[in-house]
Amino acid sequence: MRIGYIGIGIMGGAMAGRLLEAGHTLFIYNRTPTKCQALADRGATVCANPADVACRSEVVFISVPDTQDVASVLFDPDGIIDGAEPGLIVVDTSTISPAATRQFARRLKDLEIELLDAPVSGGDIGAKDGTLAIMVGGDTLAFQKVLPLLQVLGSKVRLVGPAGAGQTCKAINQLFSGLHMLACCEGIALARKTGLNPSVVIDMISAGAGGSWVLKNLGPKIVSGDMEPGFMIDLLCKDLKYTMELAQQTGQPLVGGSLIQQLFSEAQQMGLGRSGTQALYKVIEQLGQSLDTGESE
Amino acid sequence: MRIGYIGIGIMGGAMAGRLLEAGHTLFIYNRTPTKCQALADRGATVCANPADVACRSEVVFISVPDTQDVASVLFDPDGIIDGAEPGLIVVDTSTISPAATRQFARRLKDLEIELLDAPVSGGDIGAKDGTLAIMVGGDTLAFQKVLPLLQVLGSKVRLVGPAGAGQTCKAINQLFSGLHMLACCEGIALARKTGLNPSVVIDMISAGAGGSWVLKNLGPKIVSGDMEPGFMIDLLCKDLKYTMELAQQTGQPLVGGSLIQQLFSEAQQMGLGRSGTQALYKVIEQLGQSLDTGESE
Repeated sequence: MRIGYIGIGIMGGAMAGRLLEAGHTLFIYNRTPTKCQALADRGATVCANPADVACRSEVVFISVPDTQDVASVLFDPDGIIDGAEPGLIVVDTSTISPAATRQFARRLKDLEIELLDAPVSGGDIGAKDGTLAIMVGGDTLAFQKVLPLLQVLGSKVRLVGPAGAGQTCKAINQLFSGLHMLACCEGIALARKTGLNPSVVIDMISAGAGGSWVLKNLGPKIVSGDMEPGFMIDLLCKDLKYTMELAQQTGQPLVGGSLIQQLFSEAQQMGLGRSGTQALYKVIEQLGQSLDTGESE
Repeated sequence: MRIGYIGIGIMGGAMAGRLLEAGHTLFIYNRTPTKCQALADRGATVCANPADVACRSEVVFISVPDTQDVASVLFDPDGIIDGAEPGLIVVDTSTISPAATRQFARRLKDLEIELLDAPVSGGDIGAKDGTLAIMVGGDTLAFQKVLPLLQVLGSKVRLVGPAGAGQTCKAINQLFSGLHMLACCEGIALARKTGLNPSVVIDMISAGAGGSWVLKNLGPKIVSGDMEPGFMIDLLCKDLKYTMELAQQTGQPLVGGSLIQQLFSEAQQMGLGRSGTQALYKVIEQLGQSLDTGESE
């Protein structure tokens, strides 16, 4: 199939690479063109702009940072709508605003273009291995057409509802990730303060009813002081903004969601925005250190 | 081996049953004697009081609700110390105060009795199947002596530190369980408010970086409205009291821990103390309903 891919970053690059490997013809575009080189060397065609990608493709994937970037790729001069023929399917794997996604989908529908929101969970490793969870919102028929492509990228792919539902599901996913990280940071901080070996505590708790993906995969990084991203705090803060937007729009207060939004925002204030989400530990640890200082005064 | 078991409730009964099945000679005691009948029918000897259990046993297990109950079993007239010979090992599988556990251990040591704190995670199913996680605090030699017995009860058994360390580890475990439950309740409430199918959301999130034991095992119960305990809110509130005690004693504030303590306490106020921990959902749901009411005024 002739597939377009716009946004060749860590995630987009890995996912585009899998589609190429599966035998598809790839047309790619990235704002910073140098990032296209590796895929070009493997046979992908580098295009001048999103319109150029769209006019050569049956399906166009987008993997960019935020809502404004998706809007720009779709609607700016030389954007997708400038090159698209009716019948094009756009698959947006970015994590962006559910409300904006619904607007984008309506606007594209008027041009006979289908937009599927298809945010992913599972990180750069999942993108390389094709083991992502992909939560899709949009039209059933369009979903069925691109499903074989999504199954190249993910091991768990489901249509979860109409336009925006994929983004909503992802926003809920991030609520889990953030609260699990809070548990992880407070648990390890308390283990250390009480003189327990935090690695032993992680081992025991992972074996029982306190276990989580975050504890098992990121807990050991906290213990070893490895704050490299996996997934950056800046991105989680962006995502939690959409979670809290949904809370407000639907009248469902999220006291836990609000707490983690504040704490991850504090991590950004401390200059940890480009660290992995496990760097929340430094915020939690500092709370304990502040008290120590208080006692010794 | 001649083994005593004091506290034949849901957990204690299941664990004592496994020890009996493994071929040991069992001496049992329960405050409400009728609960001993099933084990007596299988060959256990029912004793008149804890002292009577202790004088016939090499190892005595305790499974009672809280700190005061353990103190009573150990030190009241006709308690364990009234019947114990030097060399007895007491294994307390109850979840109680870490600080009190250290005091009890010191007091027993003076009488040449070893106390191991050995709280468990994994619920009544884990107790029946022998798949509990058992977090042990205390003397290494005493641990090694009872390890073969603990391995009849649990699939994950570790000495995590000196006296009280098992209770500390369990208190940290409950911090994870409580925060994971909060994520679960807020996630499902938000899924419903946004019109998503909560079962689909659970399925998607469990497959990725938002997954947890709580979501997988208790999330579906929330969706179906099944609030039967597994593990009661009253007991989790008792456990979180010890978690927050550790926070205060060590100078490590737990903002997440404090939040869940408040929310589960609110659940008790709503009369949900004897429901399963998943009944926290009713507190979270009510927050959303209050806002609805506010809008319609």
